[in-house]
Amino acid sequence: MAEGFAFRVTAQCGKARRGVLSTPHGDVDTPAFMPVGTRAAVKGLSPAQLAETGTQIVLANTYHLLLRPGTATVAQLGGLHRFMAWNRPLLTDSGGYQVFSLAELRRTDDDGVEFRSHIDGTPLRLTPEAAIAAQNELGADLIMALDECPALPAGSGALREAVRRTLVWAERSRAAHRRADQALYGIVQGGLDLALRRNCLERLVELGFDGYALGGLSVGEPQEAMWGLLHDFAAELPADRPRYLMGVGTPRDLVEAAAAGLDQFDCVLPTRNGRKGYAFTSLGVRRLRNARHRASDEPLDPACGCYTCRTVSRGYLRHLLATGEVLGATLVSIHNIAFYQELMRQMRAAIEAGVFESWRRAFASSPAAGLSEDGS
Amino acid sequence: MAEGFAFRVTAQCGKARRGVLSTPHGDVDTPAFMPVGTRAAVKGLSPAQLAETGTQIVLANTYHLLLRPGTATVAQLGGLHRFMAWNRPLLTDSGGYQVFSLAELRRTDDDGVEFRSHIDGTPLRLTPEAAIAAQNELGADLIMALDECPALPAGSGALREAVRRTLVWAERSRAAHRRADQALYGIVQGGLDLALRRNCLERLVELGFDGYALGGLSVGEPQEAMWGLLHDFAAELPADRPRYLMGVGTPRDLVEAAAAGLDQFDCVLPTRNGRKGYAFTSLGVRRLRNARHRASDEPLDPACGCYTCRTVSRGYLRHLLATGEVLGATLVSIHNIAFYQELMRQMRAAIEAGVFESWRRAFASSPAAGLSEDGS
Repeated sequence: MAEGFAFRVTAQCGKARRGVLSTPHGDVDTPAFMPVGTRAAVKGLSPAQLAETGTQIVLANTYHLLLRPGTATVAQLGGLHRFMAWNRPLLTDSGGYQVFSLAELRRTDDDGVEFRSHIDGTPLRLTPEAAIAAQNELGADLIMALDECPALPAGSGALREAVRRTLVWAERSRAAHRRADQALYGIVQGGLDLALRRNCLERLVELGFDGYALGGLSVGEPQEAMWGLLHDFAAELPADRPRYLMGVGTPRDLVEAAAAGLDQFDCVLPTRNGRKGYAFTSLGVRRLRNARHRASDEPLDPACGCYTCRTVSRGYLRHLLATGEVLGATLVSIHNIAFYQELMRQMRAAIEAGVFESWRRAFASSPAAGLSEDGS
Repeated sequence: MAEGFAFRVTAQCGKARRGVLSTPHGDVDTPAFMPVGTRAAVKGLSPAQLAETGTQIVLANTYHLLLRPGTATVAQLGGLHRFMAWNRPLLTDSGGYQVFSLAELRRTDDDGVEFRSHIDGTPLRLTPEAAIAAQNELGADLIMALDECPALPAGSGALREAVRRTLVWAERSRAAHRRADQALYGIVQGGLDLALRRNCLERLVELGFDGYALGGLSVGEPQEAMWGLLHDFAAELPADRPRYLMGVGTPRDLVEAAAAGLDQFDCVLPTRNGRKGYAFTSLGVRRLRNARHRASDEPLDPACGCYTCRTVSRGYLRHLLATGEVLGATLVSIHNIAFYQELMRQMRAAIEAGVFESWRRAFASSPAAGLSEDGS
């Protein structure tokens, strides 16, 4: 691995792994959940509030930072860690996913993508070299090769073409990488096609990366189809490198993915749902705008020890959300991230204790795993 | 004063007073600045973030809480302290000011005000008895009599009529008050007319209140006219009771008002300006959306020790504000409140040290007193 990095698996239970990923900015306990700080801020949370949720590593989006304030400006301001006042591990994506999902595309070919900014229409170009140069400027501990991520369902021709291009771009990403203090991950594409995934992985391992990510999942396919692919395939990723499932998912998804042998996850759900007043709790999802919470002096989740649950009532949260006070979005986001981090902590403990399978069964039948509203 | 309350002046320097106001929820050092938590939340700040600014007492608006979630609901949830998770001193206003400024008025007579909610048009009625009952339900430590506050300039007939009605309502407010653990303040009206102010005060003192407030200022008159009235009149308020100047003001206003002998202040400026990216600093007002802050790695205010100034750069704040990240509004509001609290602390120290007049002159000629942008 790159300088200052190490990955040790400290316990295993079935395919699930408990590990520690060391980076120049500190250690990450795996399985690890990474909240999304799109524009170098996890929406509504100060760095201190974020640290208090138990978060060890945060993801930021290169596409958004390329547009504003520009990666050169972030570099001038001391790099991403200093910029967002997060002196702990960070990961940036390549920018490719947002180019394909947000920008107005002009042309995609093997060289790269021409697109227009979704903010002001400025014409821009993303190539593997540009994606790596931007991430070298940002300076996150973990960075990603540029890939092409097709929405599912996709025809086998489109999937095959995306894998071919992803491999071309992976090789160029690797060649363009200039900083020894950043670990570079390769991304496996191939949709739900196991043979295609295997082929993609094999070529990536030949190139050699510090970590391996699964891309192109949770992009339209049924949840069970994704779980099936994970259980069939994830354990084939190199055992001595961190395995990262990109952009996934619900609490249940994370448990299934950890069971399949994955180590790192990111998802906007805790914060996006938090802003809407949807809370993940041990009793199921709570929709806090619902009038039935109006006079409740109970905490949001009686099983949770986060700042929000220690401090305010459901009735107060309902009031803040109903009146549009942004503090409501912040407090529910704090809880949701803490809920995810507590879930990861429980998984790590269950793996260490050698009881992950029974823990997983118990979790799957608990209200916490459901997305339906609690009955209380 | 009411049960569990005391007010001691511990030092005096000219007309300026340093004191301690004791309440059932703790002490308040005066001169004191009270941030505004309109709907039981200081916009964007958690209770922990608010406490970290050095804030000892917060104001909440009865009108807003009457409409949503209703004062009975707040009472059911344990009262305002428990509701907003602020177990320190609180003050509520009577609701009158917002009824006159926000609601659609139907009829005002000596009995009270008929109005329609600015949210959904619900017809409602505010009388002195209703304003006190609502505040008794909320349970703040300090509560206010209902008054009528005319905008300035106002004809002498309108001012005289407002004073007459304010006195009728003051007497009924006093009679309606039911809780011994809340201190009730009377409000002096009378615009810039010194004789009218004196007449109003004299009648209020005959009735007897726990504290006295100056209302009807900073409502359209020139700043110097308000300062003149304060210097001519404020020291006539009873010396053994806290003196509260409602809804004022800029840093310079607060210094002039403290010099005139006032003890308590509230204003939305630190948070309202904070949300716009306008910061009060020792170097003058900074407009953080300005592109010249884009690449600045300097703190917002080099003389400030608040969380924001300790943690992030001006360039990062500019980025958050330019991209609409609500964290920017929160971080600048934290700084602005801390700036106000540090100003109060400096005033208290200067009064204690017997050097308030020279401190005030130095402040008045410093960039911190100005509202013009710094040149840096």
